[in-house]
Amino acid sequence: MSTNQHSDTKEIILTGDRATGPLHLGHYVGSLKQRVALQDIHDQTILVADMQGLTDNAHNPSKVSSNILNVVADYLAVGIDPTKTTICLQSQLPALAELTMYYSNLVSISRLERNPTVKSEIQNKGFERSIPAGFLTYPISQAADITGFNASLIPVGDDQLPMLEQTNEIVRKINSLAGRAVLTECRPLLGNAPRLPSTDGKNKMSKTMGNAINLGASEKQISAAVKSMYTDPSHLKVEDPGKIEGNVVFTYLDAFHPDEEYVCQLKQHYQRGGLGDGTTKKILEECLQEMLRPIRERRTEFLNDKGQLIEILRQGSRTSRERTEKVLFDVKGVFGLNIL
Amino acid sequence: MSTNQHSDTKEIILTGDRATGPLHLGHYVGSLKQRVALQDIHDQTILVADMQGLTDNAHNPSKVSSNILNVVADYLAVGIDPTKTTICLQSQLPALAELTMYYSNLVSISRLERNPTVKSEIQNKGFERSIPAGFLTYPISQAADITGFNASLIPVGDDQLPMLEQTNEIVRKINSLAGRAVLTECRPLLGNAPRLPSTDGKNKMSKTMGNAINLGASEKQISAAVKSMYTDPSHLKVEDPGKIEGNVVFTYLDAFHPDEEYVCQLKQHYQRGGLGDGTTKKILEECLQEMLRPIRERRTEFLNDKGQLIEILRQGSRTSRERTEKVLFDVKGVFGLNIL
Repeated sequence: MSTNQHSDTKEIILTGDRATGPLHLGHYVGSLKQRVALQDIHDQTILVADMQGLTDNAHNPSKVSSNILNVVADYLAVGIDPTKTTICLQSQLPALAELTMYYSNLVSISRLERNPTVKSEIQNKGFERSIPAGFLTYPISQAADITGFNASLIPVGDDQLPMLEQTNEIVRKINSLAGRAVLTECRPLLGNAPRLPSTDGKNKMSKTMGNAINLGASEKQISAAVKSMYTDPSHLKVEDPGKIEGNVVFTYLDAFHPDEEYVCQLKQHYQRGGLGDGTTKKILEECLQEMLRPIRERRTEFLNDKGQLIEILRQGSRTSRERTEKVLFDVKGVFGLNIL
Repeated sequence: MSTNQHSDTKEIILTGDRATGPLHLGHYVGSLKQRVALQDIHDQTILVADMQGLTDNAHNPSKVSSNILNVVADYLAVGIDPTKTTICLQSQLPALAELTMYYSNLVSISRLERNPTVKSEIQNKGFERSIPAGFLTYPISQAADITGFNASLIPVGDDQLPMLEQTNEIVRKINSLAGRAVLTECRPLLGNAPRLPSTDGKNKMSKTMGNAINLGASEKQISAAVKSMYTDPSHLKVEDPGKIEGNVVFTYLDAFHPDEEYVCQLKQHYQRGGLGDGTTKKILEECLQEMLRPIRERRTEFLNDKGQLIEILRQGSRTSRERTEKVLFDVKGVFGLNIL
């Protein structure tokens, strides 16, 4: 943790990722860049959510276990600094499981079934009534994560707002039972980055669909991904005017190219005709290769020293264990269970 | 724990009670007497289930917290010996909450909704869809309790058999994921004692209905309870023949009177006429007063030394914590999560 003299007054941020695959450019734009900035001004914890990753992967657990250290390497490679940000592993924090049990008694099944985020995920995954209990109830587990750290600021996309509402409902119920503010309500920190499209321009970015560029992608993989990117299908000849809207190459240039002015000129040129997709893709590829090379190199370095990654997780989990045990003690107190 | 030289080969028994009220004669006949006998020949743990008690009492938690030590005093008063039986508190065993989380990913919501025991309890309690998540999922938590102790023998009534079936389904799933027998299947130990009726002969015995005789009942309470007992409503005059079936006084005499032969004679006398309810009740009351006096006295003694009760729970919970942590380690291993 930071030794900054204002650390007591820093706002507590909790963020995290399900450890179900290596992180990609979508994570970079949507959250990782922000976390690198936030670690200097906030008390930030990143939770590697291995237990949550199992809620829909219990029958294929290696999808989770094999990605824990990858995700930590991704964090470090993009500049998350374990002396400023606490990085911890969910399965190392028993207090979170215990809080989940207590909160489960305060949330009805019908309330969970009304959660819009869960609803759409149930549909996406084709679960219907065969939904695992752990998956339906994971908003309760998320509430345990958030309150377990006393976090008040949660970086989320707007699709995750119902999760924070669920958390705050639980917070209010606990506080009402206690007759005082034992837990803190949280509020969202909505990022301003638009969601990065997949390289095929169609679907959500996903490792399994092969339409995402991982942070650890090799030079060849980056090159192939850019070459296959969706542009303007009616832009057949170089001299034809081309469309920018929905053109993934330009969306990525907007997101990653350091020179906004130059990108603006490229767009105008493309729109009036005379700029080929081969050229724009070459510009994008150069930019991504340059940006991802040092990230990939650092990532490989970290993954070659797994002992260090494990030590970072171990230390962060130790700090987090103390923190979450304190909150658990308070919540057990509300139920009168600190008699031993 | 027993220092018996055969302790390694003793079968592991897990039993317990929800700490939602003091124990009564129904518990005595249905389980406590059996536990006193079992502690000499088995490796027995009794779990005071405070967390399970909260699954339908979260908004009235003192119903649970205020009864934890009462229940322990009840155990000791009837002869459960903490040097032979491990008595522990569920909320002191984080491994059980963690196991519950892992198992939750292996059980579908529809499977829980099909559980006959849960189904009828949902109906009894009038929950319908407002059922708390923790209540619907408590069979998973029970599976965590049973497997957490590696228990293979579970004393239950036959209404609880679906719970053991649910536990064994989880055991088989974990073992199948592991490719080896990580967990042990359990089997029921069905008691031969018939369920003791309530004093009004109508409902299930319940503290709140005032139709049960608690182990700590005062002389006056015992007397009043016996006097108000349901007998044969058509047995109006002493000289009339009376019915034994459904006559609570005789059911209790069967359950508690030490002299079977004498009870048999009483029954015949009552059936042919000439034996009044006042007399049978007097005989029953004497028998219950004699049986409950020493239990009540010991119970009061224990409750006057709460420090001792707490120390017993603390020691039992420490032993149980070690045990359950070992099982948790094995289960986490199945999911590949022992990397730190």
